[in-house]
Amino acid sequence: MGTDHAPATEVAGAVAALQELESDIEIVLVGDEAIVEAEVEKYPDVPRERLHIQHASDRVTASDSPASVLRRKPESSIVVGLKLHREGKADAFVSAGSTGAVMATSLFTLRPLPGVDRPAVGTILPTAAAPCLMLDAGANVDCKPQHLIQFAHLGKVYARDLMGRAEPRVALLNIGEEPEKGDERAIETHGLLADEAGLNFVGNVEGRDLIRGVCDVVVCDGFVGNVLLKFYESVAEFIIGLLVEKLEGAPQDMNLGEVFSVLDYAEYGGAPLLGVDGVSIICHGGSPPKAIRNAIGVAARSVRAGMVRHVARELPGEMRSEDAT
Amino acid sequence: MGTDHAPATEVAGAVAALQELESDIEIVLVGDEAIVEAEVEKYPDVPRERLHIQHASDRVTASDSPASVLRRKPESSIVVGLKLHREGKADAFVSAGSTGAVMATSLFTLRPLPGVDRPAVGTILPTAAAPCLMLDAGANVDCKPQHLIQFAHLGKVYARDLMGRAEPRVALLNIGEEPEKGDERAIETHGLLADEAGLNFVGNVEGRDLIRGVCDVVVCDGFVGNVLLKFYESVAEFIIGLLVEKLEGAPQDMNLGEVFSVLDYAEYGGAPLLGVDGVSIICHGGSPPKAIRNAIGVAARSVRAGMVRHVARELPGEMRSEDAT
Repeated sequence: MGTDHAPATEVAGAVAALQELESDIEIVLVGDEAIVEAEVEKYPDVPRERLHIQHASDRVTASDSPASVLRRKPESSIVVGLKLHREGKADAFVSAGSTGAVMATSLFTLRPLPGVDRPAVGTILPTAAAPCLMLDAGANVDCKPQHLIQFAHLGKVYARDLMGRAEPRVALLNIGEEPEKGDERAIETHGLLADEAGLNFVGNVEGRDLIRGVCDVVVCDGFVGNVLLKFYESVAEFIIGLLVEKLEGAPQDMNLGEVFSVLDYAEYGGAPLLGVDGVSIICHGGSPPKAIRNAIGVAARSVRAGMVRHVARELPGEMRSEDAT
Repeated sequence: MGTDHAPATEVAGAVAALQELESDIEIVLVGDEAIVEAEVEKYPDVPRERLHIQHASDRVTASDSPASVLRRKPESSIVVGLKLHREGKADAFVSAGSTGAVMATSLFTLRPLPGVDRPAVGTILPTAAAPCLMLDAGANVDCKPQHLIQFAHLGKVYARDLMGRAEPRVALLNIGEEPEKGDERAIETHGLLADEAGLNFVGNVEGRDLIRGVCDVVVCDGFVGNVLLKFYESVAEFIIGLLVEKLEGAPQDMNLGEVFSVLDYAEYGGAPLLGVDGVSIICHGGSPPKAIRNAIGVAARSVRAGMVRHVARELPGEMRSEDAT
């Protein structure tokens, strides 16, 4: 019930996922049963044995305080869906509802994994080379260096399990390449990352290098990550708009579609909340069906890859306790 | 002696300024006299009575520590030029030398104005509407809320004096529109800005709104400002590169030039260091002659507008003491 055109977008995305992704995927649509059922009936060819509906009588709105949703809206689709996941009746959770509410409720329901103080939102940035995972993209502000170290491990596992990077290059977002550059947090974090075992730390990356695709994972505080992410989305639109305007005399057949696809966030599905004991994928409220479909695909691949188990196993705290045995 | 192709770029930019800007502008080129003179002689038509050369036997390199330049390289072109300005033999200073060295030496030589704890670098961001001044763009990290308040006043005066905005809309870069959004610094700064007299504070601006041109001045810590600035420069190049590549089959006459000019930082000249007792404009090392010419224009307009006097008069400290009389 989360997108701007719910539940039509969610149902269309789920139907596409059932038809186009692996045939063992089953989907539980969580929301007002009558409304969702009416929407599903628009797709007579959908394999109903793999498409279920779980009734949830309430829904979260933009005016709900994210932290209060679990307590005050226990019958909302976000809470009901996340409980299905926690109870093992679903293997993963995808939502385009209020980002803050999905984050907070995922955190309270699924709980952070041992060794994770602050689960982080990862987001995929298109670059001139392969896409790069940036975290945190806005879940955490006022991060301490040790939080950024945890983000580095979370990002490493995700990049390896979901993005096919064998030995992910992890970088620190900073305002200079040298270790002594940056604010207090960045300088201290650089030192810790350089000493951290089990990470392929490639050093600082500046705003200008990010787009060159020089790393697989970039870690930063959620304040700068969120500013950068939102700026990227808007600047891409701005520049393309500018070009389309200036090029109005140009022929219609030039392939702007290819350019859009490189910059199209819907291609990458949603943003994973990393570091919780479960798979929770957060989509934009403005997501089109394709983004929902792709987010379901990302969720399924996270489950198959055993991403959560890998995070739990590879976090420094766990590594240290294994070392001790 | 600062650009990547010094002094050819500086001389070409200065000659263009003399020929194209107001006819009462005089320029002092600071650098190795023989080398600069040889370069100037390539322009036989230049009005030499308005183009002077001040010998400086040394130059700052990338390996010099910015803070040590004043003491260790007193004969460098940056130090000699800034001293000319401080002594009143020049009304403004423009350099494409090491950004850190120009900032630090400007600070030590010109000194901050009363009421300014930390002078800030302003930079002009192209937007879908009128350009926006962002500060700080990298001179200051770990800023306290009171520093951001000072940036707001510095930016207001610059936007009014140099950018023609009668009542500049000042915004705070943040990760949400609501006053309670953001990290500790942003939340406290929002409260102070809302209460600050003499500012047209329009609230928080997110990364996605910046490009829409919703404000004339946006204040932020230099860490996020620098990341954003460098990212903007590179993302514009990236997207245009992507388009040029995809559009290779398109006709040659489509006017990409217009798009480039909107996104061309050289159009805006350099970045002013605001809050010092003087006019110091910092250019990219990779500046083309046009950027040097435009930076000279900005410097001249800053002097004519009385920008430094206005900053000194309108800073809160001064306003308060006027109120007290």
